Amino acid sequence: MENLSTWMEKNLCKLNMVEQMDYSQGFNRLGYTEEEHKSHLQFLHIAEELGLHTYQDEAGNQWAVWKVDENAPTIALGSHLDTVYNGGGYDGVAGVLCALAAVKVLKESQFTPEKNIAVICFISEESSRFGVSTIGSKAISGHLDISELKDVQDKVGITVKEAVSQMSVNWEKLIHATLPLSALEQFLEVHIEQGKRLLDSQADIGVVTGVARPIRLQVTGFGVANHTGTTPMDQRNDALVAMAPLIQYVSRETKNINKQEDPYLVATVSMIDVKPNSMTIIPSEVQFGIDIRSVDDKAKQKLVTKIEQFCAELEAEHQVNIEVKTLVANQSILLDNTIQSKLDHVGKRLGLKTETMISGAGHDVMNIAARWPAGLIFIPCRDGISHQPKEYTEINHLINGTKMLSAYLEMEAIN
Amino acid sequence: MENLSTWMEKNLCKLNMVEQMDYSQGFNRLGYTEEEHKSHLQFLHIAEELGLHTYQDEAGNQWAVWKVDENAPTIALGSHLDTVYNGGGYDGVAGVLCALAAVKVLKESQFTPEKNIAVICFISEESSRFGVSTIGSKAISGHLDISELKDVQDKVGITVKEAVSQMSVNWEKLIHATLPLSALEQFLEVHIEQGKRLLDSQADIGVVTGVARPIRLQVTGFGVANHTGTTPMDQRNDALVAMAPLIQYVSRETKNINKQEDPYLVATVSMIDVKPNSMTIIPSEVQFGIDIRSVDDKAKQKLVTKIEQFCAELEAEHQVNIEVKTLVANQSILLDNTIQSKLDHVGKRLGLKTETMISGAGHDVMNIAARWPAGLIFIPCRDGISHQPKEYTEINHLINGTKMLSAYLEMEAIN
Repeated sequence: MENLSTWMEKNLCKLNMVEQMDYSQGFNRLGYTEEEHKSHLQFLHIAEELGLHTYQDEAGNQWAVWKVDENAPTIALGSHLDTVYNGGGYDGVAGVLCALAAVKVLKESQFTPEKNIAVICFISEESSRFGVSTIGSKAISGHLDISELKDVQDKVGITVKEAVSQMSVNWEKLIHATLPLSALEQFLEVHIEQGKRLLDSQADIGVVTGVARPIRLQVTGFGVANHTGTTPMDQRNDALVAMAPLIQYVSRETKNINKQEDPYLVATVSMIDVKPNSMTIIPSEVQFGIDIRSVDDKAKQKLVTKIEQFCAELEAEHQVNIEVKTLVANQSILLDNTIQSKLDHVGKRLGLKTETMISGAGHDVMNIAARWPAGLIFIPCRDGISHQPKEYTEINHLINGTKMLSAYLEMEAIN
Repeated sequence: MENLSTWMEKNLCKLNMVEQMDYSQGFNRLGYTEEEHKSHLQFLHIAEELGLHTYQDEAGNQWAVWKVDENAPTIALGSHLDTVYNGGGYDGVAGVLCALAAVKVLKESQFTPEKNIAVICFISEESSRFGVSTIGSKAISGHLDISELKDVQDKVGITVKEAVSQMSVNWEKLIHATLPLSALEQFLEVHIEQGKRLLDSQADIGVVTGVARPIRLQVTGFGVANHTGTTPMDQRNDALVAMAPLIQYVSRETKNINKQEDPYLVATVSMIDVKPNSMTIIPSEVQFGIDIRSVDDKAKQKLVTKIEQFCAELEAEHQVNIEVKTLVANQSILLDNTIQSKLDHVGKRLGLKTETMISGAGHDVMNIAARWPAGLIFIPCRDGISHQPKEYTEINHLINGTKMLSAYLEMEAIN
């Protein structure tokens, strides 16, 4: 019997299609590309070695099922294999690998499940290619916004519709791919934390209570362009001078809201576009992109209202016009309480230190959780770094994730 | 005898190579291009009609001379015909046209000068093509920085050296084109104000005391990139949050210095570059371009020192590194006092309301003024707008500029 650690190291490389994991350029497996598909084929190959029944659903997600009874409930596990541009080899891959490894562990321990166990490899989780995230999990949970999705293009002008066709996914079937409610009993995802909370608290496992989803604002200030040399200070409508206080305001007020209520609110002015952005011309137009996240939707909305009020004050003070536009307003997702308790229990039984926490980033589980009981398990990653080649987690953490899943299934996959 | 107003309207169009001056796309006569050269040919044609002796100097500037005596001193007038991208038809053209018209007026009034009178049409005044301004006037006054200039390229990769060759200007001769000191007695330029001071004070003519030249800073803050969703507010090194207070600081402190000393200081954070400028990533690097101008070099330096001190405070407060780099540090130019008094006197005699003022923008005269006595006359332009198609000034203002020059020459061009 092959050692679990060796098996995981081998298949981690296999899913990433490399010989060794020190890969300085990172990985480029964007959604609905040949590269992602090649990784899916590796997944299918490993699953078949484990004796699982494999198939592709109408969205292009891969399924590997330990089928015991057509009429029994199905517990699903899974994550994704696509990456951002020059991404790491663990974001997504860790969850797929732990799910497959959990099946291997259970099979080798002669466990006899009384429910079907499925490992799902979701397609196109990252938003890097089309600006739309978690397409595969949105599709099967009925969350695809077709009107929004159909005209979206990648960098070279390929639409989602064209991209899926190139991967032999039928567009009409994709947009009607929703699984019936009875298809799943519950779902669990393992993912690297992509943050430092587990490291800071020296915990092994994060039991996630909710996924913070963003409100994104585009705030645009309109002033008047003029010559920097000939326009006196008191005759300017400088859009940048008018808008600049908003940068600190967002940071300061977010901290204030956290002090009062602790909704783990984060907010960032992450993008600026200044026009004309020329050394000798006073800025006439300044656009901020603001990303606001919390699992507490009221806290997000509270900050948005404060931002709107503050912009009105800036307008009055600086005689510029400011428009606040909402680009994205996603409801945050609370995960299943019962599953959280069980995961916490499983962790303690395994001698692992667990930490209850929220997820600041989106994951496939958030779509599934809106229709089925679902849970999310975090494992630590080095320095909290993700979405870049230096992303890394130890095999030990992957083994802990695997043990969490297999122990949970031992409890849950029997009647 | 042709009416002066009609003559000026006709030749304004001729220099701009259009039938009428309502030209919504603006003009594109960049320095050392075929378009600028065509406008120079119009200049030569008008000058020859006036009976002037024309030639091109080694920098490519066009000269039109009313030569009376080889050994007599020369009074020169002039400005430029090149434009910015989609520029107006008055910036530069106004000065060339008024100079030619002044000669016409003097010739028609049977004035007999005892000094040579030259009209210079300077080449490549605007910095739009190569990022280097006033190349023609720099050349003949010995201010060309060859080491800086020789590797500069335009948007399509043509170097200044290649560009001048294409216009039949010899590079080796250009860089040694400096006129002997004895070549000129004095120089006068007429230019549209490109600001609103004349409009605000309802004056006809600005008598300029000095040209404010810029100090330009590049201030770069280095923070740490991280995920906007997973990085708590108190664990961030957000370069933008750290740098933002500098925007208001520059505006506020400039106003404070003006209140204390009134050096007519202006300063603008006019450019921002944020990296990676991505919705989901905390800004890791923020670069500001700051343009600082005053005729009072000490006032400019005072602000630079304050900015450096403030950046040190921001560094300490926000744990980011900030670098302050000086891109440009030009000494401001004071124009000749005697010429100013004479111009003021001429204005009053003509019944024009004059206003003593400084120039916030650079002009060819600033290079000439460093070696020869020189003066600058402003005429108003509509709404103070320049460097765009809506730039406009009335023929009446052009006639006032012409009268200032002709009346001045009547006094000065005799022994």
